[in-house]
Amino acid sequence: MRTVAGYGLSLAILFVLSFPAYAQTDPLPSWNDGATKQAITSFVEKVTDKEGKDYVPPEDRIATLDNDGTLWVEQPMYTQLAFALDRVKALAPEHPEWKDQPFKAVLEGDMKALAASGEKGIVQLIAATHAGMSPEEFQKIVGDWLATAEHPRFKRKYTELVYQPMLELLSYLRDNGFTTYIVSGGGIEFVRNFSEPVYGIPPAQVVGSSIETKYEVVDGKPTLMRLPKVHFIDDKEGKPVGINEYIGQRPIAAFGNSDGDYQMLDWITSGEGPRFGLIVHHTDAEREYAYDRDSSFGRLDKALDDAPAKGWVVVDMKNDWKEVFPPGN
Amino acid sequence: MRTVAGYGLSLAILFVLSFPAYAQTDPLPSWNDGATKQAITSFVEKVTDKEGKDYVPPEDRIATLDNDGTLWVEQPMYTQLAFALDRVKALAPEHPEWKDQPFKAVLEGDMKALAASGEKGIVQLIAATHAGMSPEEFQKIVGDWLATAEHPRFKRKYTELVYQPMLELLSYLRDNGFTTYIVSGGGIEFVRNFSEPVYGIPPAQVVGSSIETKYEVVDGKPTLMRLPKVHFIDDKEGKPVGINEYIGQRPIAAFGNSDGDYQMLDWITSGEGPRFGLIVHHTDAEREYAYDRDSSFGRLDKALDDAPAKGWVVVDMKNDWKEVFPPGN
Repeated sequence: MRTVAGYGLSLAILFVLSFPAYAQTDPLPSWNDGATKQAITSFVEKVTDKEGKDYVPPEDRIATLDNDGTLWVEQPMYTQLAFALDRVKALAPEHPEWKDQPFKAVLEGDMKALAASGEKGIVQLIAATHAGMSPEEFQKIVGDWLATAEHPRFKRKYTELVYQPMLELLSYLRDNGFTTYIVSGGGIEFVRNFSEPVYGIPPAQVVGSSIETKYEVVDGKPTLMRLPKVHFIDDKEGKPVGINEYIGQRPIAAFGNSDGDYQMLDWITSGEGPRFGLIVHHTDAEREYAYDRDSSFGRLDKALDDAPAKGWVVVDMKNDWKEVFPPGN
Repeated sequence: MRTVAGYGLSLAILFVLSFPAYAQTDPLPSWNDGATKQAITSFVEKVTDKEGKDYVPPEDRIATLDNDGTLWVEQPMYTQLAFALDRVKALAPEHPEWKDQPFKAVLEGDMKALAASGEKGIVQLIAATHAGMSPEEFQKIVGDWLATAEHPRFKRKYTELVYQPMLELLSYLRDNGFTTYIVSGGGIEFVRNFSEPVYGIPPAQVVGSSIETKYEVVDGKPTLMRLPKVHFIDDKEGKPVGINEYIGQRPIAAFGNSDGDYQMLDWITSGEGPRFGLIVHHTDAEREYAYDRDSSFGRLDKALDDAPAKGWVVVDMKNDWKEVFPPGN
């Protein structure tokens, strides 16, 4: 009995000593105090309060987050598009037949002509840069590119241009029993390349757009081959569909930044019980970018109009975020 | 210092006292000792041995398991087919137009005529019983059915006709840092209904066949609607494709029981590093069923022939399993 009592006492002392320090640790240090931060912590506190009426068990604490413009920079163009353009340039010497659009536009850096090539042009670009190889080979190519490519304005690797406040939010959610998923309009295998080291989100917790993959045995070796054919577009109406398909249940919290996230936000926040929706509004031209209704990438229009009525929290990047990016090396 | 030393000593005593008891606990008590059980434990021990050359970090310890015939009974027919037939019977009064095949065959219990209706008949059955509702409504229907339906021979609920040795295997794998996934030819949303309570596998860790789902706003309410159209067949060549799509990396261990699992086993066990493939061979007509090359459900032919050369472990149910099902109530 003496040992047990002594053991209990030691533990009690440890708790008392460590508790004040813990209580003073702000889990969201890069968020300025105010209504936005308050809304986030209030939601997390109420769904984790076992005694409260809004308690949600851990298996239902699922949060889905868009990637481009929500977790990392999407200007002056989606990172995956920058990757595709670089790949075309790298592969061009082996493809003398690339004389017409969209290849001509890419090689001449003519973004207007590229935009004019439309969806057909984009599909041709994807076929040329994303297909005709195994998933493992694609991972190697993406990894090599991300390790060296630099953002044109910030002169940093793309994986360093993630939003520090959102990294803190991801950790905060997970520390409170949430499972965090990325639900991206971008390519699922592209995002899977860096989701674990950058966001702490394993490959299986990434939902995204995909091209078709075929199983074949080559020289007796089972292989998967990426085909130049779109399989699934995980954007707009596709986001709730993709979430249902990959996750199999309706999350309770959604985070986005554009009209591409509208349906995900709407479907998730209209479910029963406590719900949370948040939109990152890019209002900081100095530290990042300022854009919404007229942007080619990450257009935010209807979701911004409807946010108040829907109860979605709108982050004012300029005023709500103390820091935008993690400190540089 | 005195407190810390005392604390350390107490812990040491606890470890010493509890270790022998722990070491004697067999994690696979329903498996008879022998080569099969030995193969399983040897594999798990070597991939978890940090000092060994075959060590695999936890994030790569992914195991995929087929469901029908691998985790639960698939005779005299797939459980999901029994569900579909029961649904047709339940819905028939509202559908006087169901006069032709495959409905006539179902309502008259004529399994030969049903089989003769072929793939077209099956798709019609799926459309009539699995589509035209939201995923939530479908979950309710499946849950209600599983709560009451009984297996014709064993007179037990289907969710009780799971293999006790495989339940132990799932726990053993997870206790050793594996993430366990179901990769089923059956419908993903059907399996997700019971995977968590029965196998400890959450919905997001189920890969399976699916029909298409559409997002629509009905009376201002965002809704998903299940459509009578096949989206993905997670069988044979589809299994590696589905694994790549949902999980995003090649697992290191695969468990199946039929030729429908061949490609999954082949793709997984032909990867680099330590790999494990296992086939449940149904050899126990007394306690369960005995079938392989000539079975309509879970046909096992080529995979049985190739198992020795591929290094796949074949479970002889009759001799390797002490128990087949969990004890009844």
